[in-house]
Amino acid sequence: MIVTLLTDFGTADYFVAAMKGVILGRAPGAAIVDVTHEVPPQQVEDAAFTLLAAYRAFPAGTVHVAVVDPGVGSARRAVVVDAGGHRFVGPDNGLFGWVIEREGGARVFHVTRGEHFRRPVSATFHGRDVFAPVAAALASGVLPDELGPEIRDFVRLPSLRPRRHDDGSLEARVLHVDRFGNVVTGFTADDLPPDFGASPFRIVAGEGEIRTLRRFYAEPGAESGEPFAIWGSAGFLELVSFRGSAAERLGLRRGDPVVIAFD
Amino acid sequence: MIVTLLTDFGTADYFVAAMKGVILGRAPGAAIVDVTHEVPPQQVEDAAFTLLAAYRAFPAGTVHVAVVDPGVGSARRAVVVDAGGHRFVGPDNGLFGWVIEREGGARVFHVTRGEHFRRPVSATFHGRDVFAPVAAALASGVLPDELGPEIRDFVRLPSLRPRRHDDGSLEARVLHVDRFGNVVTGFTADDLPPDFGASPFRIVAGEGEIRTLRRFYAEPGAESGEPFAIWGSAGFLELVSFRGSAAERLGLRRGDPVVIAFD
Amino acid sequence: MIVTLLTDFGTADYFVAAMKGVILGRAPGAAIVDVTHEVPPQQVEDAAFTLLAAYRAFPAGTVHVAVVDPGVGSARRAVVVDAGGHRFVGPDNGLFGWVIEREGGARVFHVTRGEHFRRPVSATFHGRDVFAPVAAALASGVLPDELGPEIRDFVRLPSLRPRRHDDGSLEARVLHVDRFGNVVTGFTADDLPPDFGASPFRIVAGEGEIRTLRRFYAEPGAESGEPFAIWGSAGFLELVSFRGSAAERLGLRRGDPVVIAFD
Repeated sequence: MIVTLLTDFGTADYFVAAMKGVILGRAPGAAIVDVTHEVPPQQVEDAAFTLLAAYRAFPAGTVHVAVVDPGVGSARRAVVVDAGGHRFVGPDNGLFGWVIEREGGARVFHVTRGEHFRRPVSATFHGRDVFAPVAAALASGVLPDELGPEIRDFVRLPSLRPRRHDDGSLEARVLHVDRFGNVVTGFTADDLPPDFGASPFRIVAGEGEIRTLRRFYAEPGAESGEPFAIWGSAGFLELVSFRGSAAERLGLRRGDPVVIAFD
Repeated sequence: MIVTLLTDFGTADYFVAAMKGVILGRAPGAAIVDVTHEVPPQQVEDAAFTLLAAYRAFPAGTVHVAVVDPGVGSARRAVVVDAGGHRFVGPDNGLFGWVIEREGGARVFHVTRGEHFRRPVSATFHGRDVFAPVAAALASGVLPDELGPEIRDFVRLPSLRPRRHDDGSLEARVLHVDRFGNVVTGFTADDLPPDFGASPFRIVAGEGEIRTLRRFYAEPGAESGEPFAIWGSAGFLELVSFRGSAAERLGLRRGDPVVIAFD
Repeated sequence: MIVTLLTDFGTADYFVAAMKGVILGRAPGAAIVDVTHEVPPQQVEDAAFTLLAAYRAFPAGTVHVAVVDPGVGSARRAVVVDAGGHRFVGPDNGLFGWVIEREGGARVFHVTRGEHFRRPVSATFHGRDVFAPVAAALASGVLPDELGPEIRDFVRLPSLRPRRHDDGSLEARVLHVDRFGNVVTGFTADDLPPDFGASPFRIVAGEGEIRTLRRFYAEPGAESGEPFAIWGSAGFLELVSFRGSAAERLGLRRGDPVVIAFD
């Protein structure tokens, strides 16, 4: 059974190792995969995007643990989400919001039965004492609905879907800037006309205006360094620059608006 | 069998992978877990704290390899420590000092029998050629006392236990500053009065004075950002600040003194 | 079966996890080891050195995936290399050049048969859609020559072998600067006289001239901090400084020339 981990814990401290120790102690055969531990501290939406981009590469049945948890110790709930054949474990603060939005029929369970928890439960490290043990239980065959009641009032995130302006243009947001400075926008192929790229368009984002859609980074013409658009590997439209950071060139950060207008 | 790795090698070079290759070549079923490889270069005490905080989350029988080894190639000894049901492998320079202090009945063995080493043994990389093969041997069932004689003059670290001043105040040190800027002090619950927090106290540390103990980060009242104390997940008293770095606010670094006075 | 991964993807994004998800979904028992994901973006030679230094620590049969791939999506080929009992998967851009130079009888195959690919193949992420699935196939018993035809015109790297000057001195390059500031040069023991170190020599590199060869970092005399030479763990001559960065002291970077003269 595969268990993935996604946190804002960094890799310099003992936190991630402690979670893995708990999981391997309770689910000895588990294959543990780090998604990332470099989510900027307490940035729930950034984690939600990374999880959304990663989970479908894993086989059905994978247990995904996500811990970006500014409310640890408070009354915020622990949840298990059953969506698209995958299970997700973490705090109820929106981390799984975009997976739930994408997958039809997701079910969310409030983890109220504590017999799997590691005791005593630290008030500051539910990753080790609540979420890792619950993940190990799921990986060992415990079903989500054995952990607590299904709920419908779980915390949601702002929808990923673009907003349509009166002039026909569409507005989405920057979801993520990756290591290479590529800017992942909220636009998917479903949001744009089927022939997108064939007829003129303008993407207005930060200090730039982009009118070119290419198929890959090294496509002839890209060497100029001028930013262009591309369909990224996570299924979203990305703004990129050949061997350079489009985010820097365009002055864009996560959350900034991106508008596509059709002439 | 689980083998954990803790080094100051970073993750940009081939060092950690080479250790894993050797372990998996000799103990094919081993589950290898990284504790961290971001110990500041050659900071033995920092590594000793991280190991102390991590090991108990792993099941008994786990083999923990720690390599922070400024003396590699010199006459410093290689040791295996048997403590609390766990095994530890590394140079004899204090790395396991705090585990040994905590666990009653720890036994330390000087690794003199070299038949498990990878040949030729590089004078600069015992992690790959000595410690990884010894860890693989332990994970494969070799017993610590088969590797060399038990010793009592192993290298120790300064005790974690606080010092008592004449005025009744207690002094410990900053053991670690974590990714979030939380300041881990040397105080455990055993060092302080059973009702600690119920009656007035003052923690004098760096540029600050702290009089509040809270249960978790997001507890009401914490939003001000004013640093407060909390029982951390490693069992030590921590100085923290809600969504901010207490270390920065208080001007504290590893090794700095922290005094608790009772009025 | 062991699968190693070496990329310039960093660890903050979902890229590495997506590759692991694909591998574990298709080769469920695989043990995946990260070599590094911190290759400077698109620096093929830096990756080639790290792979060269790491692969021999792994047992024969290991599958090594390397993805530093500025040409992704273009006509650059995907290759599988069979060398020294190991298999290598990645783009045909020189990544495996130094492994091929070292191992006699390496064979290189152009991956033309796409039935193992993950569909649809993203034009920007062959790591997930081409190289990870091919690695999983190899780990599951598919043979290199079942994936496509053998080729001889694969991309090579400049030879690692030093150049001999008319005055008898030898010139190599800096292959890598590691986390500790140690400077790995291209000289191996085979390139230098058998008694190297016994008679006088001068290493001219950057702003320095080095006349001392030591056996390990902490050898008596090294405390001065003066840079010296040492045989490094990857089999190359390294320029190092005790508890300091030789690269900084000497003003050296990857690619810089290093000359050894014999007096």
